[in-house]
Amino acid sequence: MIPRVVIVGGGFGGLYAAERFSRANLKVTLVDRYNYHLFQPLLYQVATAGLSPGDIATPIRSIVSGHSNVEVRLGDVTSVDLKARKVKLEDGELDYDFLILATGVRHSYFGKDHWERFAPGLKTLDDALELRRRILTAFEEAEVEPDEKKREAILTFVVVGGGPTGVELAGAIAELARFTVARDYRRFDPRKTKVMLVEAGDRVLGTFDAGLAAHALETLKKLGVDVRLNVRVTNIDETGVMIGGKAPGGDAVGSEGEKVAARTVAWAAGVVASPLARTLGVELDRAGRIKVQNDLTIPGFPTAYVVGDLACFTLPDGSTLPGLAPPAMQQGAHAADNIMAAALGHPTQPFEYWDKGTMATIGRASGIAQSGRLKLSGFLGWCAWLFIHILYLIGFRNRIAVMLQWAWAWFTFGRSARLITGHSPPRLAAKAPEPGK
Amino acid sequence: MIPRVVIVGGGFGGLYAAERFSRANLKVTLVDRYNYHLFQPLLYQVATAGLSPGDIATPIRSIVSGHSNVEVRLGDVTSVDLKARKVKLEDGELDYDFLILATGVRHSYFGKDHWERFAPGLKTLDDALELRRRILTAFEEAEVEPDEKKREAILTFVVVGGGPTGVELAGAIAELARFTVARDYRRFDPRKTKVMLVEAGDRVLGTFDAGLAAHALETLKKLGVDVRLNVRVTNIDETGVMIGGKAPGGDAVGSEGEKVAARTVAWAAGVVASPLARTLGVELDRAGRIKVQNDLTIPGFPTAYVVGDLACFTLPDGSTLPGLAPPAMQQGAHAADNIMAAALGHPTQPFEYWDKGTMATIGRASGIAQSGRLKLSGFLGWCAWLFIHILYLIGFRNRIAVMLQWAWAWFTFGRSARLITGHSPPRLAAKAPEPGK
Repeated sequence: MIPRVVIVGGGFGGLYAAERFSRANLKVTLVDRYNYHLFQPLLYQVATAGLSPGDIATPIRSIVSGHSNVEVRLGDVTSVDLKARKVKLEDGELDYDFLILATGVRHSYFGKDHWERFAPGLKTLDDALELRRRILTAFEEAEVEPDEKKREAILTFVVVGGGPTGVELAGAIAELARFTVARDYRRFDPRKTKVMLVEAGDRVLGTFDAGLAAHALETLKKLGVDVRLNVRVTNIDETGVMIGGKAPGGDAVGSEGEKVAARTVAWAAGVVASPLARTLGVELDRAGRIKVQNDLTIPGFPTAYVVGDLACFTLPDGSTLPGLAPPAMQQGAHAADNIMAAALGHPTQPFEYWDKGTMATIGRASGIAQSGRLKLSGFLGWCAWLFIHILYLIGFRNRIAVMLQWAWAWFTFGRSARLITGHSPPRLAAKAPEPGK
Repeated sequence: MIPRVVIVGGGFGGLYAAERFSRANLKVTLVDRYNYHLFQPLLYQVATAGLSPGDIATPIRSIVSGHSNVEVRLGDVTSVDLKARKVKLEDGELDYDFLILATGVRHSYFGKDHWERFAPGLKTLDDALELRRRILTAFEEAEVEPDEKKREAILTFVVVGGGPTGVELAGAIAELARFTVARDYRRFDPRKTKVMLVEAGDRVLGTFDAGLAAHALETLKKLGVDVRLNVRVTNIDETGVMIGGKAPGGDAVGSEGEKVAARTVAWAAGVVASPLARTLGVELDRAGRIKVQNDLTIPGFPTAYVVGDLACFTLPDGSTLPGLAPPAMQQGAHAADNIMAAALGHPTQPFEYWDKGTMATIGRASGIAQSGRLKLSGFLGWCAWLFIHILYLIGFRNRIAVMLQWAWAWFTFGRSARLITGHSPPRLAAKAPEPGK
């Protein structure tokens, strides 16, 4: 009988595993709740109207349609029974001989889940479209708001979290306001838009080289972004954000903190593992990620693998791998290799991460990239960022479309996807206005 | 004092008027409930995943940003007081000296409004995304449905209405099933998908030349579309469509009619004027359109103009102008010319329609086009269709993106926007499933 493999999650980890299995004598089922693979590193471009959803998403079926041993199942996995080797879906269940879990992370509000409707995160296409709707609607509201003070709050955008997503998002909102829509309104000057980036740590891009992070900070400031370091968010509601300073040691200073009146807040501050992890009954780390052995299996379950952001993989130096696309891709492929070996009775191999570097972009033609000793910033860093991102965009058409849209945006400062469309999902519906009903 | 012009509606009519005013000494306000101009003739391409929303929509502000005398107002017009010369919005009102109404039409269910949630129409981007969600979700459901009879209903698509929208939509769904997703499923053969086009009249494309319409019918049949002529829809619910035959004379035949079990139904059968028309207290035609004089003004209100689908304009031969893009464009520009003349104390001119022809496309490389004595069908008709549509797509970037996507789709049969995203608007939420939640 042909061994059955179930992959849960069609992100970078799951998809690289599925691709690796293409010629294996295994029956593979890839389960995802969405019908598309999403290029998450560019989600902020959708949120700021630079790219269309179709540019960064590709149907999973069309990616694997050439692999006759790979089947795609659209569905919501509710739990996994590791002992019985069953994956349970809302509408059925799947038996497996080998399992790869790759359901990633979602944003975490550190126990303040009620903040979500006032400060949506940026993990799914729906999140990005919600943010786009809010950002574009804010400018429309500013155009009809006669009260200056209210207009100021409408034109204040707060991004919480100074990691790559927060930095890229803040930079893109600032550019949208300063260049793209600068000439489009008659009753206010969009260049007076205020973008604030709030970070609890003492610098942005904490995982990057300090010199590169300092360069990114400078670029953000040049774009007019008000960067607040060592500052904590203590409350978020429909009127804005309450922030409190803290000493570098961590203690809060100032009794009351500062109220930032803001119509639009975006959350890029923290992540927590997909809730599926808690259904397994195995050891998790503080962020809810599943601890894996060096061959990527769950201790005690040699046929169950975890890859990507969902895995807590400890490096020889005691640190854990960051939640980025490259580790997920490499782990997905490695887990597939181990499964193919195990299916033939061979031993599995330990996973070794090959660090190809990290990068981020800030605005129109500035970025930072580091790979080993190589450190690039400014235009060169941006070129490196551009090249790598387009290279990894899955699907040939998407690459062309994205390049074209960027070239166009670059020359004209135009944004191609400035559409206020759709409806808020119920969980976010309280605040979001409906355009035109 | 500079005369104030209010244009209600940013479709072809309103936008061509605004463009015409670009250098006039008038203060122009263009009101729309959406922030974008929509290229409606290509909506069916969004519904069938061929194009992304951003490809056929352009922000109104960016179209008119160069005209400093034109202001854009995002808002919902609730009524117009012709005597007091006031346009009332949900959140304010606008005084005018001259008015252009161009709010178009929406689909009509001939009194059966409860059919809408089972058979959405195709007039807005939200409509198109709703249809796309339903069509793509149907294939996903077919993949997991074990019961053959249920799967058959899931794979049956009914399009009601044999005008250009219905014909184009039915052809595109058939192609999607037969070519694009043909290799993507493992448990059923998408080529067994059934597409039915139901038309109450005795031929499709009733406004076209009979020979060309016959050619379109042949092409539809080659694509496997089951075209039912002289057939009326008597009921639509969540299980499908009830149809009854009728004699060419109009009387229904057959006592019970036929039940077509179908999971997805699209409505392209009729239109009714935007409800704004009823707030004016002036004469309307049967479809609720506003009767206008030959200079496009409303009788008795020489400063109020109506253009596009909303206007009932009687030609010298007693017929009325069809609701198509070319009459709307020409009327918008003509109303603007008349207003500029009137503002200077000159007389207005009667509107004369220059018929440039009509066209439709059926599937991948076949279309029909007629202009005066010129009649094209097949590949030549399709080329004419392609050329005209791309020529009129507003915004340079959109033209390039659309051409690229079509070229890509043509060579690969791929569809670039096969994403199940977003949430149903409340009015349609009853039936539509939510992907992944």
